[in-house]
Amino acid sequence: MSINQNSDNLQLDTKRHSFAHLMAAAVEIYFRQESFRNKTEIPNIQFGVGPVIENGCYYDFILPRNLVPEDLKGISKVINDLIKKDLVFERKELEMDEAIKLFKSKGQLLKVELLENLRDKGTTSLSEEEKRDVLNGETPIITTYSIRNTKTDEVIFEDLCKGPHIEMVDYKDINYGLDKFSASYWRGDQERGVNMQRLYAVVMDTGEELLNFFSQREEAKLRDHRTLNTQLRFFTISEMVGAGLTMMQPKGQTIRRLIQNYLWQMHKNRGYQEVWTPHMAREALYQASGHAKHYLDDMFSVYGGTSKENFYLKPMNCPHHMQLFADNKFSYRDMPIRYFEHATCYRDEKTGQLSGLTRVRNITQDDGHLFCKLDQLKDEINTIVELIKEFMQTFGMTPKWVSLSVRDNSDGWLGSDDMWIIAEEALRESAIKNQIPYKVVEGEAAFYGPKLDFMFEDCIGRQQQLSTIQVDFNLPERFNLSFVNEKGDPEKPVVVHRAISGSAERFMGVLIEHYAGKFPFWLAPEQIRILTINDQVLPYVEQIKLELDQVVLMKPLKYNELRFTIDSRSESLGKKIREAKLEKIPMLMVIGDKDVEAGQVSIEYNGESVKLGLGELRGYLEGLNN
Amino acid sequence: MSINQNSDNLQLDTKRHSFAHLMAAAVEIYFRQESFRNKTEIPNIQFGVGPVIENGCYYDFILPRNLVPEDLKGISKVINDLIKKDLVFERKELEMDEAIKLFKSKGQLLKVELLENLRDKGTTSLSEEEKRDVLNGETPIITTYSIRNTKTDEVIFEDLCKGPHIEMVDYKDINYGLDKFSASYWRGDQERGVNMQRLYAVVMDTGEELLNFFSQREEAKLRDHRTLNTQLRFFTISEMVGAGLTMMQPKGQTIRRLIQNYLWQMHKNRGYQEVWTPHMAREALYQASGHAKHYLDDMFSVYGGTSKENFYLKPMNCPHHMQLFADNKFSYRDMPIRYFEHATCYRDEKTGQLSGLTRVRNITQDDGHLFCKLDQLKDEINTIVELIKEFMQTFGMTPKWVSLSVRDNSDGWLGSDDMWIIAEEALRESAIKNQIPYKVVEGEAAFYGPKLDFMFEDCIGRQQQLSTIQVDFNLPERFNLSFVNEKGDPEKPVVVHRAISGSAERFMGVLIEHYAGKFPFWLAPEQIRILTINDQVLPYVEQIKLELDQVVLMKPLKYNELRFTIDSRSESLGKKIREAKLEKIPMLMVIGDKDVEAGQVSIEYNGESVKLGLGELRGYLEGLNN
Repeated sequence: MSINQNSDNLQLDTKRHSFAHLMAAAVEIYFRQESFRNKTEIPNIQFGVGPVIENGCYYDFILPRNLVPEDLKGISKVINDLIKKDLVFERKELEMDEAIKLFKSKGQLLKVELLENLRDKGTTSLSEEEKRDVLNGETPIITTYSIRNTKTDEVIFEDLCKGPHIEMVDYKDINYGLDKFSASYWRGDQERGVNMQRLYAVVMDTGEELLNFFSQREEAKLRDHRTLNTQLRFFTISEMVGAGLTMMQPKGQTIRRLIQNYLWQMHKNRGYQEVWTPHMAREALYQASGHAKHYLDDMFSVYGGTSKENFYLKPMNCPHHMQLFADNKFSYRDMPIRYFEHATCYRDEKTGQLSGLTRVRNITQDDGHLFCKLDQLKDEINTIVELIKEFMQTFGMTPKWVSLSVRDNSDGWLGSDDMWIIAEEALRESAIKNQIPYKVVEGEAAFYGPKLDFMFEDCIGRQQQLSTIQVDFNLPERFNLSFVNEKGDPEKPVVVHRAISGSAERFMGVLIEHYAGKFPFWLAPEQIRILTINDQVLPYVEQIKLELDQVVLMKPLKYNELRFTIDSRSESLGKKIREAKLEKIPMLMVIGDKDVEAGQVSIEYNGESVKLGLGELRGYLEGLNN
Repeated sequence: MSINQNSDNLQLDTKRHSFAHLMAAAVEIYFRQESFRNKTEIPNIQFGVGPVIENGCYYDFILPRNLVPEDLKGISKVINDLIKKDLVFERKELEMDEAIKLFKSKGQLLKVELLENLRDKGTTSLSEEEKRDVLNGETPIITTYSIRNTKTDEVIFEDLCKGPHIEMVDYKDINYGLDKFSASYWRGDQERGVNMQRLYAVVMDTGEELLNFFSQREEAKLRDHRTLNTQLRFFTISEMVGAGLTMMQPKGQTIRRLIQNYLWQMHKNRGYQEVWTPHMAREALYQASGHAKHYLDDMFSVYGGTSKENFYLKPMNCPHHMQLFADNKFSYRDMPIRYFEHATCYRDEKTGQLSGLTRVRNITQDDGHLFCKLDQLKDEINTIVELIKEFMQTFGMTPKWVSLSVRDNSDGWLGSDDMWIIAEEALRESAIKNQIPYKVVEGEAAFYGPKLDFMFEDCIGRQQQLSTIQVDFNLPERFNLSFVNEKGDPEKPVVVHRAISGSAERFMGVLIEHYAGKFPFWLAPEQIRILTINDQVLPYVEQIKLELDQVVLMKPLKYNELRFTIDSRSESLGKKIREAKLEKIPMLMVIGDKDVEAGQVSIEYNGESVKLGLGELRGYLEGLNN
């Protein structure tokens, strides 16, 4: 699910679109100034399109030369000068032929091409970006907007554009930063080879928002899990194994295992049963489930070298779980049945879209399928929402809001009205009961049932969609599932799909960035490092080791045995500490002669120093909150 | 690995081969007698081959009619009569042409075909069974054996045969049972369509062994994990998912998870680090490892529907683990590195060979790879052998013997003499130190290193090959692995592959049969069922429940929380007990009014009844041995 958060925010989008014009005007002025200075011919700058994008806008130009970083400053200066003037936007409606004539006269051949394209081939011939820039609804009215200086009456810039624009560009209202530039091709067509320069701007309502945006991005760069990984080595992606196929090094796997154990602990306490299913199945399974019809392209096909049999790697676990349910004879007394599986699914994401742990081909879901009676749906969904809240709060993430996807008035929704009403209400009530703001998105439900998608904010304010709950009236039908109800008749169960962390890979990517690689005490691959000052303390360190070996943390994960190492190399203490800090180990114990004498342990944890007697160690560690 | 246990036992094999002749003679006599009785033409019985197989022999015939079960009795009677006579085997060497002439004269056209085949196309044209029956080494000397009655001087049967045979067939020495019959094709060629009848016999040295064999087989039938599964539902194999692809139901998965946790606990305590790798990789990985050259047919190839990229499902984990090692810069201080992964590999076993959990396509190994210095090899191997012993003894299985596969005098062994000597000695010494009998098999080592295969006996005396340790000088070379040694130079590590339980699927199949579905207390999916006599006891049952919720078993697996259910249905106690016993739940707690009054719990466990006070419950359960 992807909701464009700014889709309601017409005001801000308008500002961003207006800024694209101003930026284009400034670029033209900037290069004219350059030609004056250099006494060269006035450049014929060609304008492409300048659509609004997330956080701002861009504009494509054919320029006399490629942009260089210093240009951002120069163009900004021109923009700032323009902003100080009293500028207005003026709208003009034109007949198609008139518009073509106008842009021909300006020598703007790209605009002319767009218009002719629109005239000859209709609106579908435009790309999404082109539409966002120039198209006024499906029946195109051609409009241009001019920026006019009301003081001098000079028209600074006139552009083909759908509008609307703010009447007066008030610099107090536009908080912008020229962000970056890149090479692009006219209409994205590499073969045609019309090379352009794309200039990106970030535009926000307030200066504070703008500052936040750039500092968040700086912070995000520092926290990028791919960058941190080169230093901390949580995972490995290798050329030989293939793009998007992530291998877990011991550090990454320790974290992954702890989270999986924690998830299983939470599920076990709520009546889930663990199951296991293989990673492939015959096409017959996906014909029964319906995936073969819609999903085959995104799947990996499998072929047996000896058997010559065909299979598919599973892109999700539901069809397998349906088969597990079907191999039982359940009665109403057994319901609900709750299956849980940490299972790796495979989806053929395009190579170019793969990135670190967040876009991968091996997707290990904390997948669960609930089979229940319709009257159990409300309680079950509520339990899942509670579980999601509790799990995420352990990592300091609270559900910011949920998107509730429901039916609209159209046809084609599978299942009875009653079922839909009960399911939609169950989802809505669970959000209300758990005090999570929700947005209803009509028509965004799957054809087989409504769903709830959870948005979380990480510690630098980025939103992450992780958990999801999906009601399903379809699969029980397709797999002809039933249980024996109170009357002794077969009855179809309702199925609920749900994932809490989403996928182990993506969640770990999110967590590495959320914690900037410094995992909390309970979750850190190496929780404690003991640093010795000399070899005389080694017998005493053995005593400490005996104490630590007995420590078992019980929260948030039960039976979490301590993970520690001893650095007894004959290196300087300074070097040992530096290395331990680089490895982001949460707790250090520095042991010198004084500690031996006093029978104490010097602890560095969470920016604080503590000295504890050997006998106090276990109680202290087991009492830590995270 | 497969060692024919009887390969040294020439004596028994000779008996079995001799018996095949006797059986053939008896079959001919039996059908002649039938034709006398029925006054029909004397049948022209054609003899195929009669090789020794595991536990006995078989013989293929073209008969006047198909065998029926009663024939086994009739043929046995003829055999018993023959045995009472003073029979001897007589060997004759023949020229090829002479032999062909002889069997032509007897009308034995199948034997003639074999001989002509051998003459025209050489020994490679014979099947394994045919060779076992008739071939005297690679340069064929044609020999026949006759059975002659020394009293009457009558030759009862003459057959093309490699021999040797016992001189005198003494009935006290041959303990046999005609076992079964089946249809077969001459030379296994279905298309040629020469239909034969195959008669199987079991032949043992002593009557006791024969009895053991048949009673073990009866017991094995009762314990067949596929049969037990229909009742206990540990796993599911579905037509839609595909043959050899096993899905774990909650019961099976509970056991599987407990065993995996136990294995990980044992490995963690011995310095292993858990890793995770995806289930597929590009061909490049298997080219580097060498699998692409020799193993591709047994692998599943994978193809991306969108990306059009080619991959393979991993048939083993070693190449992935090599990549994990390679992505680090280890020094001698870090060695040994020990990776552990419960990983599902996929191998394309032929559909016809798939069976329950014991022959599957998804093979989940408790796989480990050790990277060590040559001088660490001995200690590391010893640790693995200790681990194997401890693990298997938990399930009441002791290593019966190990097969030590070493080099022979031929060429082509990779790695230096020194390395081989050290590695072979390390394996041998570990067997001696752990008091496990070992058999040295020369020339059976892999070309890249020696190995140790472990044989265990299950509770009905069947031998199971499960654990394995393989030294590898090859992969470090192929993947160019190194660590920095004491001198600061790069040095190649030695790799050790090892699996303890072998595969999770097969081990579970073995365990289901070993325990006949009744798993020991610590491992049972449902350990305790509380059976109520009436609803008045329910508040008291809640108190029991609170006690049980606190029970955590600590051996053999640590942190093993209790799994119990409450049967409070208003069914008769008898029915409830019957059902619980059918489900093979190890402990029952029957709660009636008297128990409530006395504040006690009535326990049925291990064939014994115990009454305990509520306060004694935890101590009792946590103190149980399994």
